[in-house]
Amino acid sequence: MAKDKKLVEAITSMEDDFAKWYTDVVKKADLMDYTSVKGCMVFKPAGYALWENIQHELDRRFKETGVENVYLPLFIPESLLQKEKDHVEGFAPEVAWVTHGGLEELPERMCVRPTSETLFCDFYAKEIQSYRDLPKIYNQWCSVVRWEKETRPFLRSREFLWQEGHTAHATAQEAQERTEQMLHLYADFCEEVLAIPVVRGRKTDKEKFAGAEATYTIEALMHDGKALQSGTSHNFGDGFAKAFGIQYTDKDNKLQYVHQTSWGMTTRLIGAIIMVHGDNSGLVLPPRIAPVQVMIVPVAQHKEGVLDKAYELRDRLSNFKVKVDDSDKSPGWKFAEAEMRGIPVRIEIGPKDIEANQAVIVRRDNREKQVVSLDTLEESVANTLDTMQREMLERARAHRDSHTYTATNYEEFKAIIANKPGFVKAMWCGDQACEDKIKEETTATSRCMPFAQEHISDVCVCCGKPAKAMVYWGKAY
Amino acid sequence: MAKDKKLVEAITSMEDDFAKWYTDVVKKADLMDYTSVKGCMVFKPAGYALWENIQHELDRRFKETGVENVYLPLFIPESLLQKEKDHVEGFAPEVAWVTHGGLEELPERMCVRPTSETLFCDFYAKEIQSYRDLPKIYNQWCSVVRWEKETRPFLRSREFLWQEGHTAHATAQEAQERTEQMLHLYADFCEEVLAIPVVRGRKTDKEKFAGAEATYTIEALMHDGKALQSGTSHNFGDGFAKAFGIQYTDKDNKLQYVHQTSWGMTTRLIGAIIMVHGDNSGLVLPPRIAPVQVMIVPVAQHKEGVLDKAYELRDRLSNFKVKVDDSDKSPGWKFAEAEMRGIPVRIEIGPKDIEANQAVIVRRDNREKQVVSLDTLEESVANTLDTMQREMLERARAHRDSHTYTATNYEEFKAIIANKPGFVKAMWCGDQACEDKIKEETTATSRCMPFAQEHISDVCVCCGKPAKAMVYWGKAY
Repeated sequence: MAKDKKLVEAITSMEDDFAKWYTDVVKKADLMDYTSVKGCMVFKPAGYALWENIQHELDRRFKETGVENVYLPLFIPESLLQKEKDHVEGFAPEVAWVTHGGLEELPERMCVRPTSETLFCDFYAKEIQSYRDLPKIYNQWCSVVRWEKETRPFLRSREFLWQEGHTAHATAQEAQERTEQMLHLYADFCEEVLAIPVVRGRKTDKEKFAGAEATYTIEALMHDGKALQSGTSHNFGDGFAKAFGIQYTDKDNKLQYVHQTSWGMTTRLIGAIIMVHGDNSGLVLPPRIAPVQVMIVPVAQHKEGVLDKAYELRDRLSNFKVKVDDSDKSPGWKFAEAEMRGIPVRIEIGPKDIEANQAVIVRRDNREKQVVSLDTLEESVANTLDTMQREMLERARAHRDSHTYTATNYEEFKAIIANKPGFVKAMWCGDQACEDKIKEETTATSRCMPFAQEHISDVCVCCGKPAKAMVYWGKAY
Repeated sequence: MAKDKKLVEAITSMEDDFAKWYTDVVKKADLMDYTSVKGCMVFKPAGYALWENIQHELDRRFKETGVENVYLPLFIPESLLQKEKDHVEGFAPEVAWVTHGGLEELPERMCVRPTSETLFCDFYAKEIQSYRDLPKIYNQWCSVVRWEKETRPFLRSREFLWQEGHTAHATAQEAQERTEQMLHLYADFCEEVLAIPVVRGRKTDKEKFAGAEATYTIEALMHDGKALQSGTSHNFGDGFAKAFGIQYTDKDNKLQYVHQTSWGMTTRLIGAIIMVHGDNSGLVLPPRIAPVQVMIVPVAQHKEGVLDKAYELRDRLSNFKVKVDDSDKSPGWKFAEAEMRGIPVRIEIGPKDIEANQAVIVRRDNREKQVVSLDTLEESVANTLDTMQREMLERARAHRDSHTYTATNYEEFKAIIANKPGFVKAMWCGDQACEDKIKEETTATSRCMPFAQEHISDVCVCCGKPAKAMVYWGKAY
């Protein structure tokens, strides 16, 4: 019973220490483990299955918009990384360098890709000659490496899994459309599948991607009131195209530069799921992303007919991702374990239930219990999962909205940041000096200039000069 | 029309130069491209889609046998790689070394994983304590790096994609069962899905995996009579467990070492598909693995109703992977392009066909044409794809069988190897000296000792001493 013992040691409560609560949950829900490789983690089956489900659903949505998958090399020669000036400045300080292959020193060192713009550009420069070769809407699923000093499971590690889309278009307009299309695809995915509401907007120049003309982001609010950048989409204009010489002949036989985008989502989404939905009993998984949606727990399973009935219900529920916990643990242990792992619905079935042709359905999120007839079990489970999915999004949105504040002057702004974790909506003059000052004095950063602009006041919350945009501010992961 | 021009330049015929034919096909079927990273390649959409289909089908079969997916780090610290003596000797000469992270030199250099036995062992040593923690049946999909001197698209490159299963069991018997189970899963997959017949057997000690007690393999015969090792499954016994201290407490509370296996398949399977089924018009894809199974080519598409009919047929055939080629190329170009890309079935539909309520179906493999009624098109397409899949396997098996020879003495053996490309079945004494001699004098290697042993003679084909096993020999990729 060594495994069960580990489980019932209470996890730290999130009110006491949110960071500790988080690492307790990732460990006890069996999502990951640390390794001998500093800053790198193991994705255990329960953690990787979440990523597989995210991949599957995102990939399906990508392909509906014409995305094709490819795979480019893991390594980038140093000279290639250096071709676009802003890009190399942004990434060179945090890459891992390969210097030897086998027993020989390499003539030129290579980094392990931190992102693959340079490789895609090198590829596109050969691949694209005519307007007939456009657009290229490519994506790859892979891991990338960034040599972070401080790491945290799923949120920041030296290696992480992601997808990176890289597109090339004939016109600036088409590139801008694709940039926004992918951002909205990400946002819809977060809301519809992960039950995580997001703010959609544009990053300030200070916060944009190294080499981008414009970066768009979706920002989610965690339970502790900190923001998590959950997906980004970049419009590169023709900057990379000029650095790499990616040109095509248009219909009038003139040479033109392509316009490019890139967009990515990563395994930090798993961190978002934990920190938006989890509670003090562990993980809570939205039904649409849960690797196991329904756990059937037989009660008094040694009694004749109980296990058989449990298996019969499992077979009847084959439209869902369903399992029977037929281990030799007690029902109480099994309940706690299913809760820790965030399984959306638990079905309890014992001798008395069988006699009464009923089962008990328990929702993970609010622990609501229903006694339901076995005759309509499929319908009850479907309804419960649907309701839970919808209510999880509503609850997360209510939390986000009740932790979103407005500030019209700097004193108010500082007081909110210091005392009320959450987003602050406030006006900004467009000057990076104000962003720098706010960050230094409050540790809050500009999260984004939302598409849905509001007029909060006429002047910048920091310097009092005329305002150019409404910005979401907050402390962030 | 630049793209079409590239296409019609005849590819080298396989009879003239098989190696050149191969690289022509991979390039012109748009499967891959070379990169600025020496020895590494780009998987283009058509190539990566093949890998996605292989992944999807293998993963489904894995999960049916209880496999769970995980993800372990890309890097292996040098000290970890060195823990198992045979293993490090096998891999250390061909790994890429990371020496710097960001701007700092690492305290210990790390290699990019060439395979992950050492990482899994390090993980299992922490993870496994009790018999209740067993078995572990884990797999990961990832890329690995081996610093090859000579590379070839899909067959041998410095980075390749694969899956690597790593399991830990309580008993030697269970490990042996899993080793063989996965080998047969691989073999069934090759035959049922890729239409590639394979010989199943065990590697000699000379050819086994670095650190394994026994290596099992499936060997396929390419069109040029050379063998391709297409999947391997290793039983490690408790060798790694002892090196890494992976022990569990059994039911009698005694400490025991686990028994381990690993097994892998790689993107070289794409090379196998090309070299088993391809012809002088390009790629030929088995229907069950083809990313596009049916290409509808409208004839005289400018005429009223033709394109609409093509789209209507596409919608009716939505149970298959179907596309309409509605580009502005001529039908002849489209036919050649669909052939080059190996699309199993082409449907031609023009004004006269529409009038006669018919379409022309053309099989890629034997170019058989059928005129079929539109009323039963779905059925005709399904039958054609099924027949083609079955006949491709039969044809490959016939080719393999007609290129499999037996030799009872060394003169005969050498004459066959020199003049008749294919497998040679011959007896072996079990002594590595004979394997070494054969390899040196003929360049043929022992491919495997097949499960299906035959008695060809009483003595070793090389030294004449008493024979211990029948071996498949051949030149190999």
